[in-house]
Amino acid sequence: MLDYALLEALAAVVREGSFERAARTLHVTASAVSQRVRLLEERLGQVLVVRGQPCSATAAGRLLCRHAEQVALLEGALRAELPALQSDAGWATLPVAVNADSLATWFVGAAAAFAQAEPRVLLDLGVDDQDHTAERLHAGEVLAAVSADEQPAPGCRRVPLGRLRYVATASPAYVARHFADGVDAATLARAPALVFDRKDRLQQRWAQRAAGQAVEMPRHWLPSSQGFVDATLAGLGWGMNPEPLVRALLAAGTLVELVPGSALDVPLAWQHTRIALPALQRLTDCVVEAARGTLEP
Amino acid sequence: MLDYALLEALAAVVREGSFERAARTLHVTASAVSQRVRLLEERLGQVLVVRGQPCSATAAGRLLCRHAEQVALLEGALRAELPALQSDAGWATLPVAVNADSLATWFVGAAAAFAQAEPRVLLDLGVDDQDHTAERLHAGEVLAAVSADEQPAPGCRRVPLGRLRYVATASPAYVARHFADGVDAATLARAPALVFDRKDRLQQRWAQRAAGQAVEMPRHWLPSSQGFVDATLAGLGWGMNPEPLVRALLAAGTLVELVPGSALDVPLAWQHTRIALPALQRLTDCVVEAARGTLEP
Repeated sequence: MLDYALLEALAAVVREGSFERAARTLHVTASAVSQRVRLLEERLGQVLVVRGQPCSATAAGRLLCRHAEQVALLEGALRAELPALQSDAGWATLPVAVNADSLATWFVGAAAAFAQAEPRVLLDLGVDDQDHTAERLHAGEVLAAVSADEQPAPGCRRVPLGRLRYVATASPAYVARHFADGVDAATLARAPALVFDRKDRLQQRWAQRAAGQAVEMPRHWLPSSQGFVDATLAGLGWGMNPEPLVRALLAAGTLVELVPGSALDVPLAWQHTRIALPALQRLTDCVVEAARGTLEP
Repeated sequence: MLDYALLEALAAVVREGSFERAARTLHVTASAVSQRVRLLEERLGQVLVVRGQPCSATAAGRLLCRHAEQVALLEGALRAELPALQSDAGWATLPVAVNADSLATWFVGAAAAFAQAEPRVLLDLGVDDQDHTAERLHAGEVLAAVSADEQPAPGCRRVPLGRLRYVATASPAYVARHFADGVDAATLARAPALVFDRKDRLQQRWAQRAAGQAVEMPRHWLPSSQGFVDATLAGLGWGMNPEPLVRALLAAGTLVELVPGSALDVPLAWQHTRIALPALQRLTDCVVEAARGTLEP
């Protein structure tokens, strides 16, 4: 079998981001951690950790970390069945990729329900665009992901969750200033849009549909779900906001839809590795349940 | 002088993340963009763009992009004074690094006031930890940053903004479950903490002060300011939340302080390049004004 003391050191360095902090969680010295990681690298003949601030895994390192996390989760399940092992029970960590808007709307509910059911398993949530979370799954960085991909990632199971509804919204003052002449290619090309990051294509897709042609829009970049809503309210630009986040604001009239009834739905799915991990199955149940309360069927 | 058509192509590729999208914003073909970037790379004898999804700049590429953005901002100021140039006025983009909690509390107000005053300048906000935003400034990725660094970055001016107050908070049910015996090294070592990401040391700092010694805590990782508050409310863990985000929840008793009166203040400063850019000076004014309304003096 693999030398799990070495693997555990590697996983801790990547999880904690530094050799010093990994040493503290493992209750050994930093030089012991460094030695173990180096030994593993020598055995495999390749670099596993990019030494930086924070430290991160190479592609090979990620595969080993994923394996170590899976083994820790399996150990956790075993300990639950074999109370004699319980005395030195540790914490297992489940790495998951979530899109920012799910994290801002329904995912925290799933996480809280999961933590209640599995009090010895911690969640390591990473945020990425819904079109890119599956890449993290594929790269072995996470064991599960909320993704907009319609195909299951290799070796993964895909569970449809429903559709997150996005509405093109702006403040009434913003609409009066920029869209008094209607929403078309000409007005969209002059009105700054809010865009989450380089991976966010939602505003572009909506504008293309609304204008009947591709439109080059001026853009403010703002990578924060709640910041996006706040910036829409403050009149910085118009943007595609998740309907659950702006429902009350639309009802109150502090935000308005640019084109009534032009919502854009993004179908989301839960993708997870097929390896049978009881904790992962439990998280899947919590995710499906929480998504049902917020997403459109 | 430098060939600005080439520089403009490079800056567009890095800003948009792809050659195709850069081509659309410049109204040329993707192959023209690719040719210009390659020509620039040949002249300099080094790679400027890492071709990927999205494309990103190398260290040398970043320096050139920063320069191109500065020139665009100066052009914007010139056009405002020379209306004859106005006819082909474009949009300038000002790249800024902000810590997530500032973006979730006071920064959007500054951005909105700035956009009102400078309607032809767009903001490109990047999010990073307050202890790491200055690195982005130093690396030439941004022209200004909200930072916790006490020293100005090289070539930069530092304007103190005030202190963002953090309170160690949890739900009353969480406190009853984990801290019925008080908050000390033993109870903290068993109660899951929320941690934003690998760069977030706030929970660790607070716990060390509260326990009088370093404590290894189980941690859920959750990189979202609003998600952090939601997860605290839902009982996933305890965490250091910005006081302005939880003030109402503390007053209502839906969240409680772990140790009353144990807030931790993080002094923030605005750092910006010393190059005289009128738009940057305007943004500085808006930032100082908005920070004053939220941060502790």
